[in-house]
Amino acid sequence: MAVYTHIPAEDMSELVCAFGAGELLSAKGIAEGVENSNYLVDTTGGRFILTVYEKRVAAEDLPFFLSLIDHLADKGCPVPRARHARDGAATVNWQGKFIALIEFAEGLSVSHPTPEQARAVGQALGQVHKAAASFPMSRPNSLGPEGWFALAERCGDDLDAIQIGLRERVAKECTFLNSHWPADLPHSVIHADLFPDNVLMIGNKVSALIDFYFACTEVRAWDVAVTHAAWSFENDGTGFNPAIGDALLAGYEDMFGLSREERSAFPILARGACLRFLLTRAWDWLNTPADALVTRKDPLAFLRRLEHYAAL
Amino acid sequence: MAVYTHIPAEDMSELVCAFGAGELLSAKGIAEGVENSNYLVDTTGGRFILTVYEKRVAAEDLPFFLSLIDHLADKGCPVPRARHARDGAATVNWQGKFIALIEFAEGLSVSHPTPEQARAVGQALGQVHKAAASFPMSRPNSLGPEGWFALAERCGDDLDAIQIGLRERVAKECTFLNSHWPADLPHSVIHADLFPDNVLMIGNKVSALIDFYFACTEVRAWDVAVTHAAWSFENDGTGFNPAIGDALLAGYEDMFGLSREERSAFPILARGACLRFLLTRAWDWLNTPADALVTRKDPLAFLRRLEHYAAL
Repeated sequence: MAVYTHIPAEDMSELVCAFGAGELLSAKGIAEGVENSNYLVDTTGGRFILTVYEKRVAAEDLPFFLSLIDHLADKGCPVPRARHARDGAATVNWQGKFIALIEFAEGLSVSHPTPEQARAVGQALGQVHKAAASFPMSRPNSLGPEGWFALAERCGDDLDAIQIGLRERVAKECTFLNSHWPADLPHSVIHADLFPDNVLMIGNKVSALIDFYFACTEVRAWDVAVTHAAWSFENDGTGFNPAIGDALLAGYEDMFGLSREERSAFPILARGACLRFLLTRAWDWLNTPADALVTRKDPLAFLRRLEHYAAL
Repeated sequence: MAVYTHIPAEDMSELVCAFGAGELLSAKGIAEGVENSNYLVDTTGGRFILTVYEKRVAAEDLPFFLSLIDHLADKGCPVPRARHARDGAATVNWQGKFIALIEFAEGLSVSHPTPEQARAVGQALGQVHKAAASFPMSRPNSLGPEGWFALAERCGDDLDAIQIGLRERVAKECTFLNSHWPADLPHSVIHADLFPDNVLMIGNKVSALIDFYFACTEVRAWDVAVTHAAWSFENDGTGFNPAIGDALLAGYEDMFGLSREERSAFPILARGACLRFLLTRAWDWLNTPADALVTRKDPLAFLRRLEHYAAL
């Protein structure tokens, strides 16, 4: 939620030129993406998001992320492409940082999705999984099962500072998932973070899927579980909204579908999804000063979602 | 440099509709304006900056600010207008906060102005002063001489935590300005904060003057002094750039001009301008945690500029 790297207008004009995107007309730092600095830029060649990769995105992962979005766009997925520089590279270096220029897509992130919108999101996810089947690169998931167990260790006793008993609950869940995790289900490159923030919609249509910076190779149906856990609960605490969850799965079924094995493992996959966000949020909560201008996301929202899936 | 108020897409669509600006197509929180939350929004009716006024802008001042920009735009100044709501009001209320919808203007804030650009800025400032002569409202300057003296008191001994001796230097300057301030020079409504950040340029042309939220009734030539102090020094510490300063004054002369009295008081007005930014930056410096995601601006940059004018 901040612009960490300030690029003077004169330098930004040169960057836009290096991407062959014409003359720079306007640039506004946008408060999006926790990991990177982003500018919304207008040029005589169109409208783009200029991204400055900050330290949390590893430079060696950029070819994977940027090739992936180009591949998905080529296959007809609603994914904005990275514009390539005049020398063919997907990034340009500026003061030691990598810069990408991504096509701008219209659309809004909804806060209260309707079932029609959830169905469209499920369809878009199915479309991504279909297209990803032919994507040749892979990337390990640092926030998969092993990552959660390591993160639970690192949070340690501090989890109880968020809520008494949380440490024990997390340890129990780690043990459960360790022995029940369906690691033999089909793997694929997945988005892994398809929250409403990362989906732009125009009316009931998905106009863009964005922010592929957690994309990785993982149990494919886990992506469906992440999306289900991210979309199907009301933020006001009223809990699971079955109309949204069902529409999302129906949409996924329209385009791709779950096997019988994936379906029966779904509650476990969803518990893993909830544990992942519970733990990364807990870590950020414990390591973000309360007065910092970054919104700390409530880890306990995902404890409640986890309990929903655990009760199935 | 942050978006303090998150407006869900559904509510933002309604707000845009309340302003009669058509259907919302896109909204991005932008990292601009220290005081307010701003969104860059696209609608079927055009492109706008949606501003949410946070606590640092007094609600009772909004009619002054928003009428002023409309007045200046009417008089042909490059100032984006506020769109009025369907009920005629310049703001709409959302969850207890005032929201305005301002026309979007293309252009870039330059970091290293050329003399041609500085001349255009001086001309634009002169145009504003010409147009402001017929603006009927007024607003006291809380950051005028009395405000500085009060702020110096509030900073107190802490000034020496920024640099040893700063407290004494500031006290001496307050005493000097108190006895030399040319309060009898002509007053006008002025911008009072015309830094490069608040000027959008396309090439050598000023496309927009923005952020009138410090506008007030004050010694008119002080606005020229503020602009001179804000533009004519290199940020890298190489000091005063006379080509920029002279071009700025020449541009102002093209459109409005300084009287002999204003010209002879100019170094004192500029010292007051430097003291104002030195003190507000010092206060923010002393009251912003070092790890907050807000860029703290160096107060000492304006001590160096003050010494430049004091040596004239």
